[in-house]
Amino acid sequence: MDIATIIGFVAGIGFVIFGILQGGNLLTFWNVPSVLIVGGGTIGATLINYPLAEVLGTIKVVKNAFLHKEESPNGIIQTLVGFAETARREGILSLEQQAQSLEDDFLKTGIGLAVDGTEPEYIKDIMTTELDYIEERHRVGAGIFDSMGLYAPAFGMIGTLIGLINMLATMDDPSTIGPSMAVALITTMYGAALANLVFLPIAGKLKHRSAGELLLKQLCIEGIMAIQSGDNPRIAEGKLKAFISPSERKTETESTE
Amino acid sequence: MDIATIIGFVAGIGFVIFGILQGGNLLTFWNVPSVLIVGGGTIGATLINYPLAEVLGTIKVVKNAFLHKEESPNGIIQTLVGFAETARREGILSLEQQAQSLEDDFLKTGIGLAVDGTEPEYIKDIMTTELDYIEERHRVGAGIFDSMGLYAPAFGMIGTLIGLINMLATMDDPSTIGPSMAVALITTMYGAALANLVFLPIAGKLKHRSAGELLLKQLCIEGIMAIQSGDNPRIAEGKLKAFISPSERKTETESTE
Amino acid sequence: MDIATIIGFVAGIGFVIFGILQGGNLLTFWNVPSVLIVGGGTIGATLINYPLAEVLGTIKVVKNAFLHKEESPNGIIQTLVGFAETARREGILSLEQQAQSLEDDFLKTGIGLAVDGTEPEYIKDIMTTELDYIEERHRVGAGIFDSMGLYAPAFGMIGTLIGLINMLATMDDPSTIGPSMAVALITTMYGAALANLVFLPIAGKLKHRSAGELLLKQLCIEGIMAIQSGDNPRIAEGKLKAFISPSERKTETESTE
Amino acid sequence: MDIATIIGFVAGIGFVIFGILQGGNLLTFWNVPSVLIVGGGTIGATLINYPLAEVLGTIKVVKNAFLHKEESPNGIIQTLVGFAETARREGILSLEQQAQSLEDDFLKTGIGLAVDGTEPEYIKDIMTTELDYIEERHRVGAGIFDSMGLYAPAFGMIGTLIGLINMLATMDDPSTIGPSMAVALITTMYGAALANLVFLPIAGKLKHRSAGELLLKQLCIEGIMAIQSGDNPRIAEGKLKAFISPSERKTETESTE
Amino acid sequence: MDIATIIGFVAGIGFVIFGILQGGNLLTFWNVPSVLIVGGGTIGATLINYPLAEVLGTIKVVKNAFLHKEESPNGIIQTLVGFAETARREGILSLEQQAQSLEDDFLKTGIGLAVDGTEPEYIKDIMTTELDYIEERHRVGAGIFDSMGLYAPAFGMIGTLIGLINMLATMDDPSTIGPSMAVALITTMYGAALANLVFLPIAGKLKHRSAGELLLKQLCIEGIMAIQSGDNPRIAEGKLKAFISPSERKTETESTE
Repeated sequence: MDIATIIGFVAGIGFVIFGILQGGNLLTFWNVPSVLIVGGGTIGATLINYPLAEVLGTIKVVKNAFLHKEESPNGIIQTLVGFAETARREGILSLEQQAQSLEDDFLKTGIGLAVDGTEPEYIKDIMTTELDYIEERHRVGAGIFDSMGLYAPAFGMIGTLIGLINMLATMDDPSTIGPSMAVALITTMYGAALANLVFLPIAGKLKHRSAGELLLKQLCIEGIMAIQSGDNPRIAEGKLKAFISPSERKTETESTE
Repeated sequence: MDIATIIGFVAGIGFVIFGILQGGNLLTFWNVPSVLIVGGGTIGATLINYPLAEVLGTIKVVKNAFLHKEESPNGIIQTLVGFAETARREGILSLEQQAQSLEDDFLKTGIGLAVDGTEPEYIKDIMTTELDYIEERHRVGAGIFDSMGLYAPAFGMIGTLIGLINMLATMDDPSTIGPSMAVALITTMYGAALANLVFLPIAGKLKHRSAGELLLKQLCIEGIMAIQSGDNPRIAEGKLKAFISPSERKTETESTE
Repeated sequence: MDIATIIGFVAGIGFVIFGILQGGNLLTFWNVPSVLIVGGGTIGATLINYPLAEVLGTIKVVKNAFLHKEESPNGIIQTLVGFAETARREGILSLEQQAQSLEDDFLKTGIGLAVDGTEPEYIKDIMTTELDYIEERHRVGAGIFDSMGLYAPAFGMIGTLIGLINMLATMDDPSTIGPSMAVALITTMYGAALANLVFLPIAGKLKHRSAGELLLKQLCIEGIMAIQSGDNPRIAEGKLKAFISPSERKTETESTE
Repeated sequence: MDIATIIGFVAGIGFVIFGILQGGNLLTFWNVPSVLIVGGGTIGATLINYPLAEVLGTIKVVKNAFLHKEESPNGIIQTLVGFAETARREGILSLEQQAQSLEDDFLKTGIGLAVDGTEPEYIKDIMTTELDYIEERHRVGAGIFDSMGLYAPAFGMIGTLIGLINMLATMDDPSTIGPSMAVALITTMYGAALANLVFLPIAGKLKHRSAGELLLKQLCIEGIMAIQSGDNPRIAEGKLKAFISPSERKTETESTE
Repeated sequence: MDIATIIGFVAGIGFVIFGILQGGNLLTFWNVPSVLIVGGGTIGATLINYPLAEVLGTIKVVKNAFLHKEESPNGIIQTLVGFAETARREGILSLEQQAQSLEDDFLKTGIGLAVDGTEPEYIKDIMTTELDYIEERHRVGAGIFDSMGLYAPAFGMIGTLIGLINMLATMDDPSTIGPSMAVALITTMYGAALANLVFLPIAGKLKHRSAGELLLKQLCIEGIMAIQSGDNPRIAEGKLKAFISPSERKTETESTE
C-alpha cells in the first residue's frame, strides 16, 4: 500500500478521534443503530444502483489500486525501445519469445499481433477498443465509490431525522432531550466521516490511478506502432518520452547512463 | 429480478426500519398527509416535466431493467462469428433463414439489410441512427428518475415547512410543539428516503444497463460489418473480443472448449 | 395543453393545499410581502440576467410548448416519402406547388431550395446552420426557466432572513415569536414551491420538447437530401424510419395499411 | 443601459426593501462590519483567484455589456451583402476604402486580409484563432462574476458564524441574544442578496452577450469567405440569413423594402 | 508574488479579523482541536485521494504560480518572428546556437527538432503530446486544491458535530451550553474560511495560469511550424498575433516602433 494512503487514513482518523477525546470519550460516539442505518442504507442503495458483480469487483479494484505498485512509464519505454532495436536488427519475428515473458497482458497481446503480421490499422483498432473498455471499467469502479460518497451522508441525515422524530414524538422528560439529540446527530457524523475519509478519497485515487494506467496503455500502443513501422529506435524513444514529464525523463536518463 | 436489487431493497429498507424500532415504533412514522405531499408533489412535477407517454413508459423500462436478464456479449459474439463462418462458406444469402430465428430485433434488422445486399455505408448509417435513438430513449428514462430524485426531497422540505408554519402560527400549548415538529420532519424523511433508496439508485441502474446494452448493439454493428466484408471469422472474433473484458473472454473460452 | 401537464399542476398544487388544510387553513399561507419578495426578486434577477426581448419571448415559447401539439415523426416521414415518390416520377420541379401548402417553414424552405436546384452541400449547410440557431434559441428559453428555478429559492431564503432579522431585532413579546417565524418561513416555502412546481418542471419540459423538435428537423434535412439525390423512396423511408422508435413505426404501419 | 437591466435592478432591490419595511426599518439592516466581511472577503478571494488586470478589466467588460448596444445581425448582413455586390461588380480591391470606415475591428481586419489577396484558408485560420481568443476572454469575464457569486454567500456564512460565536461565547444577558442573532444573520442576507441580485445575474448577462457577439463574428467570417470566393450576393445573403431567427429576418425585410 | 494575490490575502484575512474584533476578541476564535480536525482531516483525505508525490509537488506548482512572472506572449512572438527571419535569411541551421540560449525548455526542444530536420508532422506530434501532458499535470495540481476546498468544509462540519454531540451528551450545566456551542461552531468557520480564502481561490488561480501557459505553448508550436515551412516572417507574425488580444498587440507595437 502506498505510504500516502496509510498516512492519510491514520492522520484523518487520528485527528477526528483526537477531536472527540478533547471534550468527551469515544464511547459516546459508538452507536450500533447509527452504524447500521448508514452502513446498511449505503450498501443497499449501492446494490440497487449497480450489478452485484460490479460491486463485488470493486474490492479487487481497490486492492489493486492501493497495493499494486504502478508500473513506471520509463520502464515501459525502455522495454519498447529495446523491442524496437531488436525488431530492427533481427526482424520483428524475433520478438516472439521476448513477448512471452511480459507481465503486462495488454502489451503482450499487442506485440503478439505485430509478430503475427497483423495490419497496423487493425492492431490499433483492437487495442484502442480494449483501451476504451478498460477506461469504462475504471469509470464504473470510481463511480461506485462516488455513489457511496453521496448515499452515506444522505442516510446519515435520514438516521438523524429518525432519531429526532422519535425524540420529539415522545418528549416527556426534558432531561433526555440532550442525550437523544446527541445520539441522533451521531448518524449524520458517521455519514459525513465515511464519505469524506473513505468513499470520496478512494474514488479520487481510483480516478487518478486510472488516468496513469491509461497513459501507459497509450504508450504501449504508440510503441507497438513504432516497432511495426520499423521506426528508428531513437525516434521511437523521442515520441514515447513526450508522454512523460521532463523531470521523470531526467531521472530515467541518470539511472541508465 | 437480479439478486443484488432484492438484497439492496431489503437491506436498505430493513436497516431504516430497524433504526426506527430502536427508539420508537413504526406507527410514529406513518403519516398520510406527508405521503400525499411528497408522493403527489413529486408525481405532479414529473408529469409537468415529461410527456405522459414517457412517464408511463418508464414502468416498462424499469420492469425490463430489473426483470430481463442482460444478454451476454459472449453469446452475441458466438452468434456473429457463427454467421461469419456460414457467410464465408455458403454465401451471405444463406443467413436469411438463420436471421429469422433471432430474438434481438436490432441484430435481425442488420442481418436482413446485409442479406438484401444493402451497401455497408448505408447499413452502418441506419444502425448508428437507431443506436442514437435507443441511447436517447434510455437517457430520457434515467432522466425521469433523476428528476424524481430531485423533486422528492424538495417536496419533503415543502411539507416540513407547511407543518412548521402551521405549528408556529397557532403555538398556544407548548406541550404540542414536540409532536407537531415530529410530524413536520416526517415529510423531509420521506423525501430523503424515496430519493436515496428508490429514485436515484434506479436511475443509476438504468444508466448502467443502458451502457451495457449500447455496447452490445455496437458489437452487433461491428459484427455485421465484418460479416458483410467477408472477413476471416477468426479476425472478426478478435475484433469483437476486444469489446469485452479479458476475464469474460476467458470464461467464454472455457465453456466452449 | 397536453393532459399530463394539467394533471401535473392539479396534482402538485392540490396535494400541497391538501397538506396545508390538514393542520391549518389556507389564509395562514397567504402573505403579500412574501409574494412580492420572491416574485419581484426572481423577476428582477431574471431581467438583469437576460435581455427583455428574450424574457418576454418565453411567454410565447411556453405557450407553444404546452398548447401546440407536437408534429408526429410518422406524419413527416409520410410527407417526405410522398415527395420522394413524386420527385422520382415527375421530376423535382413538380414539388414546387406541393411545398407551398406545407405548414412547417423549415421544411418549406428546404424543399424550395431543392426545387431551385441549389447544390446539396449548400442546402445542408444552410439548414444545419438554421437548426443550430433553433437549438440555441430553445436552450435560452429553457435556461431562463432554469435560472428562475435557482433565483426563486434564493429569494425565498432572503425573505425568510429578513423576517427573522426583523423578529429578532425587536423581540420583546415572546408570544409573537411563533407567528413571526411562521410568516418568515412562508417566503422560503413560496420559493421552493415555485421552483419545484413551476420553473424547474417547465424548464424540463422545454428541453424535452426541444429535443423532439430538433429530431424532426434533422429528419427533414435527411429527407430533403434523399429527395434531391433521387434515392429510391423505399430506401429513403428506411433511412428516415431509423430515427423513430420501433413501437412508433409499428403504429404507423398499421394505420397506413 | 438596456431597459431590462434597470427594471431588474429597481424591481429586485425595491421588493427586497419593501419586504424589509413591512416588519421593521432599513436601519436594522445596515451593519458596517457585515458589509466589510462580505465585500472585503469576496474581493479578497477574487483577487487571489484572478490576476489583477483581469479583475480590473471586468469593469470595462460590464460597462460594455450594459451600456453598448448590441450590433444587429441584420445590419452586418446588409453590410456584407453590400460588400459582396461591390466586390462582384468592381473587384475585391474596391472594398479597400469602404473597409476603412468600418467600426468593427474584427470585420475590418478580415476585409483587409481579403483585399490583400491572402489565401482563404489562412484568413479563416487567423479569424478563427481570434474568435477563440475573444471567447476565452469573455469566458474569463463571466467566470469572475460566477466566482464572486460563489464567494459572497460563503463569506456571508463566515460572517454569521463569527457573530454567533461571539454571541455564544459571552452569553450573559439573555435579552441581548435576539438582537445579536439579528446582526449575525444580516451578513448571510448580504451574501445571498449580492450573489442573486448582482453577481450571478451579471455573469448570466455576460454569457448571453458573449454568445450573441460570437455569432456576429461567425457571421463576419462566413461573409468574408463568401465575398472572397466571389459568391453570388443573393446566395451569400441566404447563407448569412440562416444565422438569424425567421422573425428577425422578416423585420429586416420589411424595413428594407 | 503578484500584487493582486497579496492584496487579496491581506484584504480577505484582514476583513475577517476586523469582523471578529467588532464583537469579541481573537482568542475566542483560536481553538487547537478545531485546527487539528480541519487541518488534519483535510490533509488526510487529500493524501488518500492523491499520490504523495503529487501532493508534495503542489508546493512547487503553487510557488511557481505565485512567484514566477508569466512570460509575455509578445516577447515569445518577437522571438519566434526573429527566428523566422534568421531562418529565411541564413537557413534553419543558423538557429542552432540561438536556441541554446532559450530559457523555455519547450521552445528549445521544438527548435532543436526543427534544426535537426525532423519532419513537421512528427514535431507537431511530439509537441502536442507534451502539451497534453503539461495540461494534465496542471489539471491535477488545480484538482488537489479543489479537493481540499471540498474536504475542508466537510471536516469543519464533522468537527462541529463532534462538539455538539459531546455537549449534548453531557448537558448538565445550562450555563456552559453557549460557550460549548461557540467552540463547536469555530470548526465550521475554519473549514469555510480555509476553503474560500485559500484552497478554492488558489485552485482558480492555477487553472487561470494553466490556460495562459498552454496558450504560450500553442503559440510556440504554431511558430515553429511557420519557421520550418519557411513562411514569410510577416505572415508568421500575423498568424501568431491572432492569439493575443488587440490591446496587448497595440502595446507591443508601440514599444517596438
